[in-house]
Amino acid sequence: MTNRPLVVTAGDPAGIGPDLCVAVAAGSQGADFVVVSDVDMLTARADRLGAGITVTPVDADKPGRASPGELRVVHRPFPAPVDCGKPNPANARALLDGLRAAVDGCRGGLFGALVTAPLSKQTVIEAGIPFTGHTEFLAAATGAALPVMMLVAGEMRVALATTHLPLRHVPDALTIDRLRRVIAILHSDLRTRFAIEDPCILVCGLNPHAGEGGHLGREDIDTIVPVIEEMRAAGMNLRGPLPADTAFTPGTGHRDAVLAMYHDQGLPVLKYAGFGHAVNVTLGLPIIRTSVDHGTAFDLAGTGKADVGSFVAALELASTLATRS
Amino acid sequence: MTNRPLVVTAGDPAGIGPDLCVAVAAGSQGADFVVVSDVDMLTARADRLGAGITVTPVDADKPGRASPGELRVVHRPFPAPVDCGKPNPANARALLDGLRAAVDGCRGGLFGALVTAPLSKQTVIEAGIPFTGHTEFLAAATGAALPVMMLVAGEMRVALATTHLPLRHVPDALTIDRLRRVIAILHSDLRTRFAIEDPCILVCGLNPHAGEGGHLGREDIDTIVPVIEEMRAAGMNLRGPLPADTAFTPGTGHRDAVLAMYHDQGLPVLKYAGFGHAVNVTLGLPIIRTSVDHGTAFDLAGTGKADVGSFVAALELASTLATRS
Repeated sequence: MTNRPLVVTAGDPAGIGPDLCVAVAAGSQGADFVVVSDVDMLTARADRLGAGITVTPVDADKPGRASPGELRVVHRPFPAPVDCGKPNPANARALLDGLRAAVDGCRGGLFGALVTAPLSKQTVIEAGIPFTGHTEFLAAATGAALPVMMLVAGEMRVALATTHLPLRHVPDALTIDRLRRVIAILHSDLRTRFAIEDPCILVCGLNPHAGEGGHLGREDIDTIVPVIEEMRAAGMNLRGPLPADTAFTPGTGHRDAVLAMYHDQGLPVLKYAGFGHAVNVTLGLPIIRTSVDHGTAFDLAGTGKADVGSFVAALELASTLATRS
Repeated sequence: MTNRPLVVTAGDPAGIGPDLCVAVAAGSQGADFVVVSDVDMLTARADRLGAGITVTPVDADKPGRASPGELRVVHRPFPAPVDCGKPNPANARALLDGLRAAVDGCRGGLFGALVTAPLSKQTVIEAGIPFTGHTEFLAAATGAALPVMMLVAGEMRVALATTHLPLRHVPDALTIDRLRRVIAILHSDLRTRFAIEDPCILVCGLNPHAGEGGHLGREDIDTIVPVIEEMRAAGMNLRGPLPADTAFTPGTGHRDAVLAMYHDQGLPVLKYAGFGHAVNVTLGLPIIRTSVDHGTAFDLAGTGKADVGSFVAALELASTLATRS
């Protein structure tokens, strides 16, 4: 299945997503991806950046092969003008429609995987569209019950049991049922997508020192331990709950992924370790989806200063995962 | 004031604290510290480890200078036998008395700084002594209102606004008053102890993405922003609140310390970055105190496998800070 191209959504056109697409096309020897976006906007961005590339409109079902310095685009026009650094809610609907088309293309077998550049949650909400993020949108669009967020930087993989919610809601959101489903998805996707036969997952505690025997909170004992024991009895190679401040160090030995209980327990260390080349992968979807690990960086759009590292890594990982699917 | 020795408390004698003291004495050219502990226990541990050192009892007020391969000890006997790997609550009271004597020695000018090896909170509690940790004990012993925990690994410094409490109690514990006092202590100690004239402190948000404009929690806006604005107006160089998952990356530029809002937001990245040489420093005390960043490791006591890196770094940092005081 390696002959299907990747599909890229360029994200908010006022941000750096288009810059990243242009930069990769300029630097590659015909990277095998097509972008779902506005041909004129991308042509203008390429000119502004002096990229010296050709932006070519293609059909989604007949993309051909890219030549060096060519950016292939499935044209979806934006209704409102695009101004670097100034997000326009009037383009939000077209953005999401393009995203949906990309998803449909993956499900229909046109594309091997989806790679998303950043969009601004705030701008979509300002357009009057209920929106909590790419991940949730993709779950709804594909009928996935529970998307699981994992960040990858080289050999370090960090998945999250809960994601974007206020810290004070985390302990109650971490139910036995949720944790069980997250671990099942993580384990399954590490096997099938990452080709790890018997993945070792290191599970963090919720509280500092993993609760220190109950002195610093009961959730580690009452929620996490029973799930680990149950799933270990079912044959999974799980370790934990481990204190988060030692879980990521080399001293804990081999692991294929660390499961953090919440956003800021797992991502600071992943983004520190993988600075400039971390990739966000959504597990639990019927399609393969990777993403950059950063935001729209409106202030850098059109300046040529956007760092392409995470986007390149997202394309590479998507390509690797698609090859295995 | 550099001619005063450091004082080391060897921690739980069933753990690796004594091993660390023995190892450093064996490897050094007369390190300028004295240990408050049991001479016979340390002699036995040195023999067991085949360290080839001399354990010399000294008076706290006349420690002399150590020769290479000599470990100077202010003798405080343990009432119960010491068995490697088997903590004995019967020795807990003597441990804490030794710790208090070390503190008094620092306050009385006998010692330049205190370096603590790990003890087991659980073992002290089992002895019927209310105890929540070294840091809190030292605060009470010195009349400090608010000890502030900071970990140091090379150029990375991470302080905590809250420390050892269940995650669900963190948001309410992070009051405006607490945050103001923590920042004041951190700023003051960076200036006086770390000799940083105008310290730049990067303050993390409490919620993921620093609350994303209130979409992911209000504390960042309601608690953290007002304190930062107030203290910035008073002349401090503060940045934030910043999302914790980007705060630690090189992309955020220069900072002298990062202030994390809670334990597992700040320490996983610090301990990952500083694996094997991170040091815990307690700010806000009238004495200088550093500590290893790890626990008692009962399973390694007496085996010769304990990693001395963090202990060596704790001695070095204590020595540096003492020179400046």
